[in-house]
Amino acid sequence: MPSPSRAGVPAFNAAELDPVKQKLVTACHILDREGITDGYGHVSARVPGTTAFLTIANVSPGCATVDRLIMLDRDGAYLGGAETPPNEWPIHACVLKARPDVMSVCHTHSVWSTLFSVLPIKLRPLHHYGKFLPAAGPPVYDAAGLVRTVERGDALAEVLGDGPVVLMRAHGDTVVGASIEQAVQRTVRLAKLGELLHLALLHGEPRYLTAEELDTFSADERFPARGWEYFVSRLGK
Amino acid sequence: MPSPSRAGVPAFNAAELDPVKQKLVTACHILDREGITDGYGHVSARVPGTTAFLTIANVSPGCATVDRLIMLDRDGAYLGGAETPPNEWPIHACVLKARPDVMSVCHTHSVWSTLFSVLPIKLRPLHHYGKFLPAAGPPVYDAAGLVRTVERGDALAEVLGDGPVVLMRAHGDTVVGASIEQAVQRTVRLAKLGELLHLALLHGEPRYLTAEELDTFSADERFPARGWEYFVSRLGK
Amino acid sequence: MPSPSRAGVPAFNAAELDPVKQKLVTACHILDREGITDGYGHVSARVPGTTAFLTIANVSPGCATVDRLIMLDRDGAYLGGAETPPNEWPIHACVLKARPDVMSVCHTHSVWSTLFSVLPIKLRPLHHYGKFLPAAGPPVYDAAGLVRTVERGDALAEVLGDGPVVLMRAHGDTVVGASIEQAVQRTVRLAKLGELLHLALLHGEPRYLTAEELDTFSADERFPARGWEYFVSRLGK
Amino acid sequence: MPSPSRAGVPAFNAAELDPVKQKLVTACHILDREGITDGYGHVSARVPGTTAFLTIANVSPGCATVDRLIMLDRDGAYLGGAETPPNEWPIHACVLKARPDVMSVCHTHSVWSTLFSVLPIKLRPLHHYGKFLPAAGPPVYDAAGLVRTVERGDALAEVLGDGPVVLMRAHGDTVVGASIEQAVQRTVRLAKLGELLHLALLHGEPRYLTAEELDTFSADERFPARGWEYFVSRLGK
Repeated sequence: MPSPSRAGVPAFNAAELDPVKQKLVTACHILDREGITDGYGHVSARVPGTTAFLTIANVSPGCATVDRLIMLDRDGAYLGGAETPPNEWPIHACVLKARPDVMSVCHTHSVWSTLFSVLPIKLRPLHHYGKFLPAAGPPVYDAAGLVRTVERGDALAEVLGDGPVVLMRAHGDTVVGASIEQAVQRTVRLAKLGELLHLALLHGEPRYLTAEELDTFSADERFPARGWEYFVSRLGK
Repeated sequence: MPSPSRAGVPAFNAAELDPVKQKLVTACHILDREGITDGYGHVSARVPGTTAFLTIANVSPGCATVDRLIMLDRDGAYLGGAETPPNEWPIHACVLKARPDVMSVCHTHSVWSTLFSVLPIKLRPLHHYGKFLPAAGPPVYDAAGLVRTVERGDALAEVLGDGPVVLMRAHGDTVVGASIEQAVQRTVRLAKLGELLHLALLHGEPRYLTAEELDTFSADERFPARGWEYFVSRLGK
Repeated sequence: MPSPSRAGVPAFNAAELDPVKQKLVTACHILDREGITDGYGHVSARVPGTTAFLTIANVSPGCATVDRLIMLDRDGAYLGGAETPPNEWPIHACVLKARPDVMSVCHTHSVWSTLFSVLPIKLRPLHHYGKFLPAAGPPVYDAAGLVRTVERGDALAEVLGDGPVVLMRAHGDTVVGASIEQAVQRTVRLAKLGELLHLALLHGEPRYLTAEELDTFSADERFPARGWEYFVSRLGK
Repeated sequence: MPSPSRAGVPAFNAAELDPVKQKLVTACHILDREGITDGYGHVSARVPGTTAFLTIANVSPGCATVDRLIMLDRDGAYLGGAETPPNEWPIHACVLKARPDVMSVCHTHSVWSTLFSVLPIKLRPLHHYGKFLPAAGPPVYDAAGLVRTVERGDALAEVLGDGPVVLMRAHGDTVVGASIEQAVQRTVRLAKLGELLHLALLHGEPRYLTAEELDTFSADERFPARGWEYFVSRLGK
């Protein structure tokens, strides 16, 4: 079934989206299973070749199903699926608009991201899992409260810049990836890195990884098939 | 079957109470599943249009069933159900008496509430989940020990005042809501806020949310259908 | 079937021991389920009317079965059951010998007991769960290493004195009770109290419960039917 | 089926390896179940009487199966099994080459090992579980990043020396044993010891075990049948 036609939105074939939809649901379940989301948060995926994106409706990631996905245009216009968009759809719309390289966006209320969002300490990487992060740590979007408007979404995207992560004060994080798998693995690793840094800081000044060290690391970060298989294997356990 | 008639207690139809009873049992199971209760604690719900309330008998929240609920009047008089009231029924009786706006009360031994009950530090909100709390944090009921008398229950209600939460020294917390769902979600969020504040304080002075910021937040706090669906989905996992 | 006759050991009827044996196995499973034991540790129960006691053989509490129990006399003499006694049987033999009021002994490597066993800080109670503890906290048996001899067992019992708990340096704890249920609930609560004190101490000097306050508390500590039902309900989840 | 013949590699009978393979898979599952591995890490076992070793292919320990094992020679030459070796096969090749007494090697990204790898604090033992460690704690391999070359593998083996453990900066640990069971139990205990030391250090200087004390301990460390049975019993729970 072709999509509703709308000026500026290329047509797409719903059947082609089925694997994306299924992966998006799996991504939501993974973030829930790994203890990152807690009833709130969402994952989105760009609809290839269009300005549209898919995300979950106003439901918990742990309760996501294919029938509870929604398709929105970059301005929030409804293009299909479950009727009620998440309150914070501008996070996804604005980041995907500003970052053509990004295919997927995760927004969570991760406790470790929230922690570093309210402290005058940067979440600098201490483990090679942090290869995807800048050595100085991700920036913090300083405005507290939900991102329910395009103005706030654009401001968030501006702080994100061309980086992989933006922390959100008193709120959580937004993490981007070149694929759903990458965005999810980065989100999980960001939480692990945050926990590790928290633990280390309790004992004094840890030895951080330098930018030079991070540059030299090889990692399966771009297409994390191994991590994805592992996360999937844990669902339902 | 009409309730036992008793001076000052309006009659009620038991069948109308069935959904409330089922929700009360679910609330108990949620607090257990989320790691808030530990064999002790209870949830109560006002019987609409009466001075009576329902709560669990002297059993663990995790072991609650509809058959183990008890109905009491505000003075502790037995009105039906399981025979043995919880030792601390005055918590519920006295708070519901003092607060006509409250429909449900949760009492737990949450480790995070207990922690801030024995420290000279207020549990001030650091995340927008804390919208329901005063910016200065909840008050502490200072008398250690169980609340087994109406005198202590009234004193607890006085410290609670018109707020959402009172911490109880060396004991836990009492949290109120305009619905069972709201009281439960507030209880879970209070624990999350306590844990986050604990973590943040280990690194110095965090950036608290101001009263102005808390005021501006929108939230589905009043009728938390989304959070409730999520909590229910986790039961039995 | 009567027990093997032996000088000084009254005969007992094996069938009468079956409920004790089953409860002992359940106790082991509870301590494992609650995260207190970790492959090591044991629970014992006095055989009523004799100088003998039952405990698990040299197996993990989480792997206990009725067939893996062993009966020993107070000097370690084998009286029946699984053939291999636990290495540290003198803990149980010596404490039961020294304390006629004690019916059950738990020995675990609880992380929270171990923590306070290597610090110059007493595990003083901060929650009314600590009613069973002295306000000054339990003593520490200072000799590191296993308790594999009667000499060490007697020394341990001497440090225990007439109290409920003795911590064991670089090792764990030994907790006694007037019943299996009480010993188990005390062991679990000791861990909870240790965790709470650990958390509180990170923020400065907490407000401890005074001896006067502890005295005034009422609690279902002596026969903890409610806690026991709860622990049992969690087995297999 | 005899192995591929190759200069310097004695023939072996594949059927004889089946129990080793099964145990290796179980070892991987245990490390995953106990929360030590997280999608990354691997366990290896020497092929008796040869210079070859078995390990998992480039998959997560939690996803290991007998069909996903690979046999490599000490120089990384492929000898059979799943086609893709783990990136860090030199860890195993070089340690097994340097240490004829070692039959099994575990490499994990344990958070507790990583923590002490980035701090100027030694992971000294505080519990008798640390009997296998030197009283001064294990050394740290200082080069950050993956061990994907023989040069790095040899350097790691040199820092390991004749000890049981080497921590790896910003990475994790490598732990050796005289059997698969011993290497696994040591890995789990190292994590427990790291967590305990972390907790203790937050409260000041703990009382460490002395070298003399560690020497006097008896333990079932060499062939940990009891611990292994326990770990196996927890799989699938």
